[in-house]
Order: sequence, then structure tokens, then C-alpha cells
Amino acid sequence: MDPVYHDNNATTRVFPETVAKMLPYFSEQFGNASSIHAFGSEVGGALRKARKSLQALIGAEFDHEIIFTSGGTESNNTAIRSALQVMPGRNEVITSTVEHPAILSLCDWLEKHEGVVVHRIPVDKLGRLEIDAYREALSEKTAIVSFMWANNETGTIFPVDGLADLAHEVGALFHTDAVQAVGKVPIDLKSTEIDMLSLSSHKFHGPKGLGALYLRKGTRFRPLLRGGHQERGRRAGTENAPAIIGLGHAAEMTLQTMAEDGARMAALRDKLETGLIESIGHCFVTGDPHDRLPNTATVAFEYIEGEAILLKLNAAGIAASSGSACTSGSLEPSHVLRAMDIPFTAAHGAIRFSLSRETTEAEIDHVLKVMPEIIAGLRTMSPFWSEAGAKPDGFNPEYA
Amino acid sequence: MDPVYHDNNATTRVFPETVAKMLPYFSEQFGNASSIHAFGSEVGGALRKARKSLQALIGAEFDHEIIFTSGGTESNNTAIRSALQVMPGRNEVITSTVEHPAILSLCDWLEKHEGVVVHRIPVDKLGRLEIDAYREALSEKTAIVSFMWANNETGTIFPVDGLADLAHEVGALFHTDAVQAVGKVPIDLKSTEIDMLSLSSHKFHGPKGLGALYLRKGTRFRPLLRGGHQERGRRAGTENAPAIIGLGHAAEMTLQTMAEDGARMAALRDKLETGLIESIGHCFVTGDPHDRLPNTATVAFEYIEGEAILLKLNAAGIAASSGSACTSGSLEPSHVLRAMDIPFTAAHGAIRFSLSRETTEAEIDHVLKVMPEIIAGLRTMSPFWSEAGAKPDGFNPEYA
Repeated sequence: MDPVYHDNNATTRVFPETVAKMLPYFSEQFGNASSIHAFGSEVGGALRKARKSLQALIGAEFDHEIIFTSGGTESNNTAIRSALQVMPGRNEVITSTVEHPAILSLCDWLEKHEGVVVHRIPVDKLGRLEIDAYREALSEKTAIVSFMWANNETGTIFPVDGLADLAHEVGALFHTDAVQAVGKVPIDLKSTEIDMLSLSSHKFHGPKGLGALYLRKGTRFRPLLRGGHQERGRRAGTENAPAIIGLGHAAEMTLQTMAEDGARMAALRDKLETGLIESIGHCFVTGDPHDRLPNTATVAFEYIEGEAILLKLNAAGIAASSGSACTSGSLEPSHVLRAMDIPFTAAHGAIRFSLSRETTEAEIDHVLKVMPEIIAGLRTMSPFWSEAGAKPDGFNPEYA
Repeated sequence: MDPVYHDNNATTRVFPETVAKMLPYFSEQFGNASSIHAFGSEVGGALRKARKSLQALIGAEFDHEIIFTSGGTESNNTAIRSALQVMPGRNEVITSTVEHPAILSLCDWLEKHEGVVVHRIPVDKLGRLEIDAYREALSEKTAIVSFMWANNETGTIFPVDGLADLAHEVGALFHTDAVQAVGKVPIDLKSTEIDMLSLSSHKFHGPKGLGALYLRKGTRFRPLLRGGHQERGRRAGTENAPAIIGLGHAAEMTLQTMAEDGARMAALRDKLETGLIESIGHCFVTGDPHDRLPNTATVAFEYIEGEAILLKLNAAGIAASSGSACTSGSLEPSHVLRAMDIPFTAAHGAIRFSLSRETTEAEIDHVLKVMPEIIAGLRTMSPFWSEAGAKPDGFNPEYA
């Protein structure tokens, strides 16, 4: 069978139809959208349409609430830094322990070098936010609250709408890193109180190198990149027309069948999880079983190394991951799973399978077919396993 | 004849061969380069090759001196902000009055809101930097000097190598915005003292949405975008693989024939300038006649409006510009031409023709054919012209 790609939370295949829409804007209608001649103005219309398509995907009230950026990381950095500048007298940030590095690394830096006070709200064993701790951290000093919409590793969804309301009660801004949520679950920003939202094109079959920051009309803002007047003076730099047009088209395609795709992915994910648990002992699914993305299954296999599993999977033609691609190469187990208090012996062996609307049942079956042997083989070589094998109570049913 | 594109300083056509090289990385080898599976690792090799190609184009000693960014604006913002952080006790920036908005707007902001002292070194009537003023501004308080390599409007080249030496004499960092120079003139960074250099892919037939910051080995640095460990921890965000591969290929193609292309463009530019001056009175070429880009001709037509000329040119199928695309829409004449002390009556009527290696002689001839009538027609409608027509000394030979 063809190589199987189960790493869609890292990046997705650009829809071939989307590439086709982008193509003319590289070598034919290649003008600078800010130019007044025909080469430029033709592009302007296509950019307006793309902005409208993204507006529909996220349910923004106005299309000018969208600022195109180079990706989720830039959007996140822009949101946090802007809030700290426009909220005088407030120098505290509230976030969670399970955010993406594009939030956590920035917060670490701000705390260590720029005098910002950072509150990192913990999660429980299912990855759910400790709301009481959040309430306690909120104060008149909070400049911004930033909680992810959906976790990239476990798929756990935070109730961002309600979390935003709480932030507003103390006059703070609310931002959500929705990089993993946009395109996978319905989003209707106009019915929420969310002030800012980050998204990334390549997580929903659009091109890499493009993202957006949603900025609710009326929200005070300071640009991160200064220069030309693009994006209404909120993000300088020549418009990345082919990518914006690609994002718009991917947004359109995504929205059209999001409900069916979600249901289908959830069914495949359930089949995958159930199949793995039934055929392999000492493993469990991580994250909130009740509120999570339809496409993400992170299964922790106890007493073995995730990297070893990945190599074996790769040899079997299956691409998966042991956490965020942005932290791969690190020997530490996932900070997300550690924050959920999952024991080292299990966190080390966690594998994320992230599906897409293109995932087929045969691709799930292939994983179910090869995994038992891979796990069994690795466990026979694991010193931790032989020890645990002697005491079956090493398996913590709390995570089953 | 087909529409004629003489606006290559705004943006260029991506080489069709370059698009072909990018294509597989959208929908086939689409993995996240940071992933360890085959979908990701295949991409890694292509990225390394692209980095080497750019290294060759700019003559960097090491390929890891290149940090990929989202474009020239991000590179410029990153360079200036980094320098202000890593040079404790130094809070002054030296730049010129003719920089791109990506430097000037940032400096205006830093001066007004972040306590930075900014020295803007003037230029003479030919756009050449006033070196004495630069020497005087340099001090132990200078954190960074930023001078563009070549001006986007006039093509005037600054002697950046020598300017960098002067900056180092006072212990300051030296950055150059080389967005217009890279790909048009030979650059060999390893033989200079330049610490940082900004470039943009779409100015030399690569894709939009990508640029790079050259950072000389050993130069202290603080990232602008924090998050994942990409670009050796110096610029977070999923690698924009298709664009990086496109930039690499465009760099390779550009380097192969740069010398011949430059000579050919310069000859066409000279034909254009001479032809316009011979057939149309009261106009002159701006910029340094001795040291400028081979592709850029900005001609000031006195007593008429540049926007009107552009509209007529557009109707005749010719795309040109009245200055930087990043400042179009503004009613003010070009800040570059004003800084050169070119009178309002001429600066308002300045038109930039920027050629590329794809420009043909027929495309130059087309401009020479239509321009005299366009200018004559607009001048009969201009109140300034009838007045000036009565006094031929209204033409300032200093600019001829």
C-alpha cells in the first residue's frame, strides 16, 4: 500500500485543487497587489475573495477583522505582544501549561527578560483546564489571557467561549491559538467574545507560510511588523498573493463538508483507538474523551520509547508523530502529557495519529495490522517491560 | 503586443521553472520538515540544498548564516530590534532618509515610543549618502547602522562595505536592506564586514512570502518570533518548504547568468532613458549615474502628475510605478526624491521603470513609442505646464 500519512496535526497535504487555484498567481497574475496597474489590481480582487472565504470559515462579522500573517507562530507572537502594549498598567499574561511552544516559549522569554508576570494554568489528567485556578489568576493586572482552542497533541478542546467571558470580567483581552481547531470544528467568532484568534493555513490543506490573526473590530492593536500599509497598516510586507488565494480556497473546500468529514474522521479515530486497545495491552488514549477534535488520537504505549515506535512505523510506511513537530528532536517527553500527570513510562511511549478528511479506512486498518507486532517486538527488548510484566498492577487503570 | 511589465522592483514573475520545482512540495512531498518520518525527512534534504543556493548567491561563508523569514519586512524588523536588545548601553540607530518604509516606519516608531535615538543621514541630489554626516552621527551609543544596499526607487547603490567598516570602528552592528540588490548585482558577504543583510525572494523571481536574514557567524542575536526550534532557534514557525525550495532555485538561476543579464538590462535601461530624454523635454533621470542598479530607471517628468502618467501607461498595456508599491495610494510625492531635493513639480511626475532579465527590447521600444504622446497630452491639460512653458528657465539643468 502507498505510504500512509497520519500526521495531519503537523501539516496537511495541500488540496491539488487548491494548488491549481494558486498556480496562475506565480507566473501570470504575479503583480504586487499594492500596485495600481493591471498586474496588481487583478490580484486585489482575488485577495478580497480569499479573505471572505476565511471569514466564512471562522464566522467573523467583518472581513477586515482578518490580518494575514506568515503563520500561527507569527499570529501568536503578535497577539501577545500587542496586548502587553495596548493594556497600560497590566503586565500579566494567563495561559495554560499545555500550549504550543509558540505561546509557551514566548511567555518564558517575557517572564525572564521583560518583566511580565505569567500564570500557567494547569490541566487535569484528561487535559481539561483547571477553571478554578484560572479564576484565581485573573485580576485587574491581567493584560491578556491566551488559551488554545484545541490541543495539538491530545485534541482536547477548551471551552474558549466561556473562558473569554471570564477574561472580560476583569477587563483583560482574550486570545486563542486555534491553529488545530480551525477547519476541524465549527467556529463562529461573531457569537463569541474572543478578541483575537490565531490560525495557520497549512493545518487545513492550504499552503505553508501563511496564517492569520483575527482581530475583533474595535480591539486595540499594535503591529509586530512595521513598514508598508498592507493589511490596513496592521502587518507590513508584500501580500503573499498565491498563498492567500490558496488559503481562501482551502477554507472554502473545508467549510463545504466539515460536518460530514468530522463525523467520518471521528468514526475512523474511534476504530483506531478501540482496535489498538483491544489488540495491545498496557496502552491508553490520552485527552478528554468527551470534548476533543475528531481527528486526533494520541495513544500512550507503556514501557517503550515513542521514537522507536515511530521508526518502526516509518519502516512500515506509516507517518505518525510523538508530539509536536516543533519539539521533535528533544529527548524530553511531551510537555503536554507531563502536564496531564501521565507517568514518564507512558508519556515516553505516546504516539499521535492525526487524521484528515483524506484518511481512508484502509489506512487505519494498516496501522491496526502492524502495530501489535511492533509493540510486542519493542517490549521484548525493554528492561522496563520485563519488570512491569512481572506485576500486572503496573498498568494504571485510571488512564484506561 | 502583450502587456508589458516594467515594475520588477515591486515584484517579479516567478520563473516557470522555479514553480515547477516547488510544485511537488505542496501535495506530494508535503511533510513538515521537522518531522522524523519519511514525509518530513525527504523535505529536509531539499531545504538544505536551497540554503546552499542562497548562500552562493550572497557569498556567505556558512549556510547556517542564513535565517529564512517571511520576507524583507520581517528581516528588517528582526535585524533592528535584535541589535537594540543585544547592544546594552547603546540606544541609537543610524539610517538614511531614503530607506524603504520597512526601516523608516520602524525607526519612526522606535523614536516616538521606545526611547530610541534615530539619526537619518541625508543624501545629495544624486541620491548619494552624505558620508560626513554619517561619520558625525556615529558614536559609542550607536547600536546599529542600517543602510540599504540599493535604493528601490532610483537604483542608487550605497558603498555598504565601507559603511560597515565605519560602523565597526565605533563597535556598532551593521545591517543592510539588500532587498533590491540581491540577484541584480554581485554580492560576496564573506569579503565584507556586514553583520546582517535582508533579502526578499520575490524580487529575484522567487515566490512571495519568503525572505531571509543573513546573520554573520558570531553576531549576537535575539529572535523576533519565538516558538519552535526551526532555523536553529532563531526564527520559529513551520518551514515554508515549497517557498524555500523556490527561492533556492531562483537564486541558482539568477546567479548563473547575472553578469550577462546585468549588462543587457543596463543597455536596455540606457536606451530607455536616452530615448525618453531625446523625445520629451523637461524630464531627467534621477539617482547616481555612476553607481546604480542595472535595471532601474526613474525619470521625472516636470509639471505633470505621475498617477496620471501611470493610468495612461496602463491603458497602453504598460505597468510601471510612481515609487514604492508599499507607499502607493499616498498623495505625497516619493520621500526618496524629496530627500534628494528634487522639486515638487518634478518629483510628482516621476515614473519608475524597473526591468528584469526577461525584459525585451521590443518592450522598451513600446514605451518609447507611447510616452511622448502621453506626456504631451497631459501637459496641455496642466496649469503648471502652461505657466512654465512661458519661462524655459523653469527647467533646472542641474538635474539633466
